[in-house]
Amino acid sequence: MDLSRARYLILAEGSFSLHGAKTASSAIRYFPERVTAVIDSTQAGRTVGEVLGFGGEIPIVASLEDGLAVTGDRPTALLIGVAPRSGRLPADWIPVVVRAAEAGLDLVSGLHDFLADIPAIRAAAERSGVAIVDLRRPPTDLPVSTARAREVDAFTVLTVGTDCNIGKMTAALEIRRGLEQAGARVVFAPTGQTGILIEGWGIAVDAVVSDFVAGAAERLVLEGAKRVGPGGIVLVEGQGSLIHPGYSGVTLGLLHGTLPRAMILCHDATRTRIRSDGVYDFVRMSTLTEAIRMNEAMLEPLRPARVIGIALKTAELPEAEARRAVQRAAEETGLPATDPVRFGPEPLVRAILEAAGPAAMVRPAPAAQPA
Amino acid sequence: MDLSRARYLILAEGSFSLHGAKTASSAIRYFPERVTAVIDSTQAGRTVGEVLGFGGEIPIVASLEDGLAVTGDRPTALLIGVAPRSGRLPADWIPVVVRAAEAGLDLVSGLHDFLADIPAIRAAAERSGVAIVDLRRPPTDLPVSTARAREVDAFTVLTVGTDCNIGKMTAALEIRRGLEQAGARVVFAPTGQTGILIEGWGIAVDAVVSDFVAGAAERLVLEGAKRVGPGGIVLVEGQGSLIHPGYSGVTLGLLHGTLPRAMILCHDATRTRIRSDGVYDFVRMSTLTEAIRMNEAMLEPLRPARVIGIALKTAELPEAEARRAVQRAAEETGLPATDPVRFGPEPLVRAILEAAGPAAMVRPAPAAQPA
Repeated sequence: MDLSRARYLILAEGSFSLHGAKTASSAIRYFPERVTAVIDSTQAGRTVGEVLGFGGEIPIVASLEDGLAVTGDRPTALLIGVAPRSGRLPADWIPVVVRAAEAGLDLVSGLHDFLADIPAIRAAAERSGVAIVDLRRPPTDLPVSTARAREVDAFTVLTVGTDCNIGKMTAALEIRRGLEQAGARVVFAPTGQTGILIEGWGIAVDAVVSDFVAGAAERLVLEGAKRVGPGGIVLVEGQGSLIHPGYSGVTLGLLHGTLPRAMILCHDATRTRIRSDGVYDFVRMSTLTEAIRMNEAMLEPLRPARVIGIALKTAELPEAEARRAVQRAAEETGLPATDPVRFGPEPLVRAILEAAGPAAMVRPAPAAQPA
Repeated sequence: MDLSRARYLILAEGSFSLHGAKTASSAIRYFPERVTAVIDSTQAGRTVGEVLGFGGEIPIVASLEDGLAVTGDRPTALLIGVAPRSGRLPADWIPVVVRAAEAGLDLVSGLHDFLADIPAIRAAAERSGVAIVDLRRPPTDLPVSTARAREVDAFTVLTVGTDCNIGKMTAALEIRRGLEQAGARVVFAPTGQTGILIEGWGIAVDAVVSDFVAGAAERLVLEGAKRVGPGGIVLVEGQGSLIHPGYSGVTLGLLHGTLPRAMILCHDATRTRIRSDGVYDFVRMSTLTEAIRMNEAMLEPLRPARVIGIALKTAELPEAEARRAVQRAAEETGLPATDPVRFGPEPLVRAILEAAGPAAMVRPAPAAQPA
């Protein structure tokens, strides 16, 4: 199936919200025109716009069958809309997924538990001739990194962060849009299930066997460099944080496999502790200065490179406070700062263009030669 | 099958040497009495002692059939004796493994490619009723770490290192022996295929999906603490290095999942570059001071703890130079240093006992109470 043409009915039973259903809310943010409805019986009758603040009139329905019955907007695929920390599919969702397959919907999921490995779901998909796309399933032939990302003829930028769920993918996507508008050649290299859903390619590095995480990042950089061509910009989606008790290994493997030429640091202006339902409350968030120093220090022995801008998440602040937070971040670090969603990515776009140099710009096509 | 009772015929065709067949040479170092022969047709007729410098009269034979025919020393299992960087089984070894199964040998392997996933091998094992033990196959139910290792009532020590293959397992095993001789309660928690082969339990963290590496380390610490009892010492086998381009993610995940109370730094006195057939030559080895600082800095936000001793690998130096290297390491760091294999682990044993406190010692059994 072609992810870029699918029309999605999203399953988010009991958990549809901005934070509770990241895959669902990202799909609605980036391609609302291809989302037909959201299943969450606890909020049926409301609209997506009412719950998320964006997504407009997309209906929330009580069941798969109600979702299939939405007039004039037939979905082609069921998207599992949640990515719980465990990565497991709630057991009572299996019958719903089976019925979706029987109704002819392709099945798309970003969970660690692959749908294709659940016998009832696999059997239903085979019977019905629908596709299963497990976004997180890694290639089977990944290498141990040999650090070839050092040598690519592209300018690699990695979004790093002080925590999970702090805007590393969003910042990269906003920066990509800004770079394209500025006339640069740029490709976005997704490293997580949501980015893969949006772009249609990538590797979910957190689902890769740990010996091969850097190798997966290396492969993404090589592929991105090929796609964008010599001198172009490869924007790699970061994951986690170097001080995250659960995921720091993914973060460092990604940093060392990517070997970026520059980093953008993503941070939440209002967060003071590593966030995860209180599990990691004992970890104080890094300051911007600490996080810059740590990321640069961990990269330095392999390839010295700098953090060149700050992407701040200010969604929970009123606008005036958000502007002050951006101003403070710029003053503390001496770097360009912005909330790329709220105030636009321009300061970061300028910083990257300056670092990447003129080779990153689209050149006018050569004049036609006389035959 | 019971790993601790198996008698091994080791397959190391074309690659039997100290560095080329780490699994084989570790087996021979730690339980030579249970190794019946080594298969390597390029060195058939020699003894293991001639090749490794230890292992004595264990014969090297040309084929599986010759290994089975060694008089009076019938193996019960075939051990795949190599762990190539890719972790893959050489294709032309498959028929040999199949014939071993057909001859009634259990099959033991530490490769990333699981023997049980190779159809011809699996079928042969099922036909013959022999066991397949893939040492690196992780548990299927690992959690994301919730940092419970912080709370265990045991003194956790992690061996960290400046590179791969630099003595982190060996140092831990030598220290364990020293601690036991000193009357301490201690358990060794293996994190790699060779340690698991020696101990009969553990998790190969490099084979775990990267989101769950810290969770695997957490589980090992909890299990180790249970085995050793309150106040005992859990010695966790480290992996890789924080600046290793291929494996640093494994290293940091293990550090943050283990959350040790103290670290022992392992280093090779003669190595100047990250070693791996030249692939990583661009990375200068850390100095001891740099490596101590980096390991402590990466642990600090989660649990402040110190490196309390240096385990130096000096195998490639003459004895007088080795003693000088140990002396220099102690002077540079202000910490106890030794080559635990060559000069004994005592300085590290004393440092750990001092840090762990008297609760780690075996207490005399309470006097029998009158009934």
